[in-house]
Amino acid sequence: MADRLALFTGGVFADSHAKTAHGILRYGTREVVAVVDDTSAGAVASDVVPYARRAVPIVGSVAEAVKLGSNVLVIGVAPFGGALTQEWRAALLEAIGAGLSVEAGLHTVLSDDPELSAAAAAAGVELRDLRAAPAGLSVPPADRPDARVVHTVGSDCAIGKMSVTLELDAAARARGLSSAFVATGQTGIAITGWGIAVDHVISDFISGAASRLVHEGASRAPLLFVEGQGALGHPAYSGVTLGLLHGCLPDALVLCHRAGATFIDDYPSTPIPSLTELIALYEGAIGWVRPARVTAIALNTRGLSDDEARAEIARAVAETGLPATDPVRFGASPILEAVL
Amino acid sequence: MADRLALFTGGVFADSHAKTAHGILRYGTREVVAVVDDTSAGAVASDVVPYARRAVPIVGSVAEAVKLGSNVLVIGVAPFGGALTQEWRAALLEAIGAGLSVEAGLHTVLSDDPELSAAAAAAGVELRDLRAAPAGLSVPPADRPDARVVHTVGSDCAIGKMSVTLELDAAARARGLSSAFVATGQTGIAITGWGIAVDHVISDFISGAASRLVHEGASRAPLLFVEGQGALGHPAYSGVTLGLLHGCLPDALVLCHRAGATFIDDYPSTPIPSLTELIALYEGAIGWVRPARVTAIALNTRGLSDDEARAEIARAVAETGLPATDPVRFGASPILEAVL
Repeated sequence: MADRLALFTGGVFADSHAKTAHGILRYGTREVVAVVDDTSAGAVASDVVPYARRAVPIVGSVAEAVKLGSNVLVIGVAPFGGALTQEWRAALLEAIGAGLSVEAGLHTVLSDDPELSAAAAAAGVELRDLRAAPAGLSVPPADRPDARVVHTVGSDCAIGKMSVTLELDAAARARGLSSAFVATGQTGIAITGWGIAVDHVISDFISGAASRLVHEGASRAPLLFVEGQGALGHPAYSGVTLGLLHGCLPDALVLCHRAGATFIDDYPSTPIPSLTELIALYEGAIGWVRPARVTAIALNTRGLSDDEARAEIARAVAETGLPATDPVRFGASPILEAVL
Repeated sequence: MADRLALFTGGVFADSHAKTAHGILRYGTREVVAVVDDTSAGAVASDVVPYARRAVPIVGSVAEAVKLGSNVLVIGVAPFGGALTQEWRAALLEAIGAGLSVEAGLHTVLSDDPELSAAAAAAGVELRDLRAAPAGLSVPPADRPDARVVHTVGSDCAIGKMSVTLELDAAARARGLSSAFVATGQTGIAITGWGIAVDHVISDFISGAASRLVHEGASRAPLLFVEGQGALGHPAYSGVTLGLLHGCLPDALVLCHRAGATFIDDYPSTPIPSLTELIALYEGAIGWVRPARVTAIALNTRGLSDDEARAEIARAVAETGLPATDPVRFGASPILEAVL
């Protein structure tokens, strides 16, 4: 039976932390029958978040999603810290009781939870933990496969690195190139069906996991777009960012930034450096292991008018001397050309 | 019953990868009755590795350690990748069968291993996994406790960062200061009895684990010496290094380096930058979140004559303009004064 997804967003569908739901709506190929979100209930997904593109109804309860024919509840929020909350637990148990499988990319492992496991076993449904680490991870080998690796890095979390990566891969394939998107987080895995959530592996094996992904990707295509995670200046996630960077050993970097952002969203006292400083920082950090350059800037201009977005892009070009655009709004071609 | 340790080193006692055994011998307070190492059997530990200081007999088998009265076998090697090997498994099963508990800091979790668990249960002995992550880890809070935090960072793994940190803590306490050593790896935990192996936590929580350690340390003493892990330029472990650095938010850094080393030991094609470049690299990386300076250099001069060691130290002082010494060989005072 094909998946018919209900995306549960716990009241924050309009917020960037619902990025898993947004990403599945925009880039996923599975059917989505509803978004479950009590704050936005009654509206249509693509009206609340135009980026999401699909005109899926937003309902206020799991019961309504069941009436619309859903058979899988997906947790569509990537909460800070990644833990399952008590409020969500009730919704999950309701979904399981109604015969829905549950798919999640939390750090809390659903199948390790006695209450959820027992309920799922009783109902005969699956608990899918997208973030679970594969067996047999270790440190990376010294070699790198013979593929061109493009890696998105950024100034903060949840600013659209995955979207940029997916847009680049789609643009490359639209040109007839053989390329693959390499998922390194739960949303990417929910969209593509393979990958490793590198932020959930044992920290000694981050680079090893990234290296394994690049080897796996190289068996699929000679041109790889590896999604980035976190930011080198993020007080909680910088280790993941650096381990991923050193594990995937990119040939070219795309720097992603939310236009106008000046502080880390989760740590409002931590400033974001200028684009020029960010370029130096990432080129410096990859250079400790293998040289690579930032060759383009991807700006997230969500919330700006087209004119404002163009002005921000022009400012980024002037500051850095690199090609820049918002690939989600204006297309990925200028960035693609800069990374090939 | 007090622990009477046998340190198992799988034939590499003379090598730097046996750093867990060396550290326990030099800095631990528990009784050690034997080293079990077939390569060095018949010799005395402090003759083979003077740093180890204790004149403990090296025997060739677990059976001989049992005869000497051991009741705990400690895996004294930190192998690259941290996995349990088949050769070691036989020794562990022999020890368990002879009534010894087993203590290890591998990534392989002994108590998750069906064969070892069953054997331990049958023999009524403990399996102690020093690297096991504590429950309830998450991302770090934005605040930092009111303690002075000194953090050792380095140019590679297994070059003596833990030793430098322990020497600094001992020197501070010898001066009447109230200080604490903060263990971030399995050997430090084996020595002090508390800490978190930050390289074994979920990678999203490295900084959170480091932050928790600093909060815990601050409840013990106002001056903390936090041991470093890995190196920012290490292709496998850089993520752990950066996450730890950003999680412990040091006031001062001590740069550790093995005199004469020019390439990463585990990745011989990856060069080690100069001391000046390493200082810029670490000060740059901590500066992304909170400024701090490298204020002293700790050189590991093992294997050099005293004259050669002094020449290397003079060279480091001349290059960096900072105080430098080998605190294991010549005492930690010059470094301690530079970090207070």
